[in-house]
Amino acid sequence: MSSWPIFDRRFVLRALAALPALPSLATPIAAQAQMSPAQAAPLASWNGGPAKQAILDFVRATTEPSSKDFVPVEQRIATFDQDGTLWVEYPIYNQIMYCLDRVPAFVAQNQALKNVEPFKTVLSGNSKAIAKLSLPDLEKIGLATLTGMTTDEFHTEVSKWLDGTKDARWERPYTDLVYQPMLEVMHYLRDNGYKTYIVTGGGQDFVRVYSQRVYGIPPEQVVGSSLSVKYGYDKDGNPILIKEPKLVLDDNNAGKPEGIHLMIGQRPHAAFGNSTGDEQMLEYTGGGDGKRLGMLVLHDDVEREYAYGPAQHLAEAKVGAFTPALYAKARTKGWVVISMKTDWKQIFPFG
Amino acid sequence: MSSWPIFDRRFVLRALAALPALPSLATPIAAQAQMSPAQAAPLASWNGGPAKQAILDFVRATTEPSSKDFVPVEQRIATFDQDGTLWVEYPIYNQIMYCLDRVPAFVAQNQALKNVEPFKTVLSGNSKAIAKLSLPDLEKIGLATLTGMTTDEFHTEVSKWLDGTKDARWERPYTDLVYQPMLEVMHYLRDNGYKTYIVTGGGQDFVRVYSQRVYGIPPEQVVGSSLSVKYGYDKDGNPILIKEPKLVLDDNNAGKPEGIHLMIGQRPHAAFGNSTGDEQMLEYTGGGDGKRLGMLVLHDDVEREYAYGPAQHLAEAKVGAFTPALYAKARTKGWVVISMKTDWKQIFPFG
Repeated sequence: MSSWPIFDRRFVLRALAALPALPSLATPIAAQAQMSPAQAAPLASWNGGPAKQAILDFVRATTEPSSKDFVPVEQRIATFDQDGTLWVEYPIYNQIMYCLDRVPAFVAQNQALKNVEPFKTVLSGNSKAIAKLSLPDLEKIGLATLTGMTTDEFHTEVSKWLDGTKDARWERPYTDLVYQPMLEVMHYLRDNGYKTYIVTGGGQDFVRVYSQRVYGIPPEQVVGSSLSVKYGYDKDGNPILIKEPKLVLDDNNAGKPEGIHLMIGQRPHAAFGNSTGDEQMLEYTGGGDGKRLGMLVLHDDVEREYAYGPAQHLAEAKVGAFTPALYAKARTKGWVVISMKTDWKQIFPFG
Repeated sequence: MSSWPIFDRRFVLRALAALPALPSLATPIAAQAQMSPAQAAPLASWNGGPAKQAILDFVRATTEPSSKDFVPVEQRIATFDQDGTLWVEYPIYNQIMYCLDRVPAFVAQNQALKNVEPFKTVLSGNSKAIAKLSLPDLEKIGLATLTGMTTDEFHTEVSKWLDGTKDARWERPYTDLVYQPMLEVMHYLRDNGYKTYIVTGGGQDFVRVYSQRVYGIPPEQVVGSSLSVKYGYDKDGNPILIKEPKLVLDDNNAGKPEGIHLMIGQRPHAAFGNSTGDEQMLEYTGGGDGKRLGMLVLHDDVEREYAYGPAQHLAEAKVGAFTPALYAKARTKGWVVISMKTDWKQIFPFG
């Protein structure tokens, strides 16, 4: 657990260079992301095909009492990666934007760091220079901006930031940029007795701020990379929890099944991801008895979202987090690949 | 986190001396502990009085839509300590018995340790000598017997042990020795939209083996002291999780609110405990807005269960984990003390 999970993927640094300006300007936004209304038919935004059919077959096989693969309701657990599986992860994880945007406020409280790297570079707003920051530098920024405050203060800051920040391409809050077909999968599974969990390499405390509003998933059903907290008291003697710079759970790769055991204690029956960081979660899910479902979202829709990973690889010989090797493994493991281009009628709730 | 949480309390060593024989003989038991049937009236095993009234008042205040203290259903979290709050902890935590009972099987796999302390002493069955083992020795036994196997193997072993082991006084499985009035509190809270959690200093993986059957609480709603697990593969290439000798969460004292934040991410509205290990959990719960409920079980019923802590202190000037200081603090904090003798018509489901 030497490096920060949110700074872990190859394309992060490359992507930073492509951003329009840093830190992004916080803009108040009136309309908040809304949960989509309940669908009359399940999976309404899905085109017919093997991906949609796999979901319908799985639910029928595991919930019909006469089925040989019937799963008791208390064992119905489904896990979802977040970045790139439930919402847009390209060109950069939103949580990294949050950390960079918090640097001015952090330096205002720590004036001595104003001319110290990496803070100096971030304050310059020079996106090319920021893109050249090393991973240890980005980790320093993460530690500075994610720790040293109470959990309540962190919650408030993230909430304000999400309300006031827009994605550059869609000019909408990040929390609007969730995939409507995946919201429908979560609703459909919940309607059939499944508990839906987010299992993310991103920060657990970060995602818990908006998980209920955006995904209908309560904080206790978010598993993510976690920093420790320390119990103490404020000046009035009220109990508080302070966020500390110590990693408790690196919820990526093998850390996903390990985190699932720690936080859930049951093996999922279905798991959804999009990258090599989700590989072990899908493997672990598939290693259980009876019918299991593993699915991978393929980003192959350059017009409506992005194309990267194997889709881009095939055309341009570039490799993203979703590698050709993972794509090949999906075939041997029976994981179902979801083509955003082919399988989804609509990408976003606002589409 | 220098010492093992389950070996943490003063009376453990004293209590070991009082045990009839070690290791206990595993005896198959036909009848398993059953969930008590749904109650027609809530809290039927409770006598009228301030404790019962506090529970009824709390539920009314937080669930009636017109109440100023109304709590939305997704925020209704109630946490329960286990040992001494939900089941018998005296004279020794069941999990320590489990570790001692596992020593012969462990040594059979590690013959070189047969004549090495502390294993040699445990194998001797001499309860006086076992009671003199140091805390580091007991920690060695814990590490030896709780790690190095897969999570599935551990689950199977604990399950077999629980089925085959009887408490010396009641001659019943440990899982029978749960408090009927507390089962009713959990049912009543769940009937009113609360999610009930166990937050125990004991081992999370241990309690998760029987939490659904005994308390109606699924594994994912058990927070406890946790060892890390490591993801890997068995000889056939199937994914497994191996239990490792590294403490991830010491879920006692300040570790309880810290564990609640890690695993639940919301501040509870009600918390139940019985010892100083629960003090910070009750404090943290009480530190939130609106109406909160903190309760402490007082072991003052020497005939039907045990008397220790302040009850014993008052008579004999001995101090248990539930100290007179905690008892005094309960008054200033508004925590409600539950007298087993006065408040409970019945202690166990089989009563």
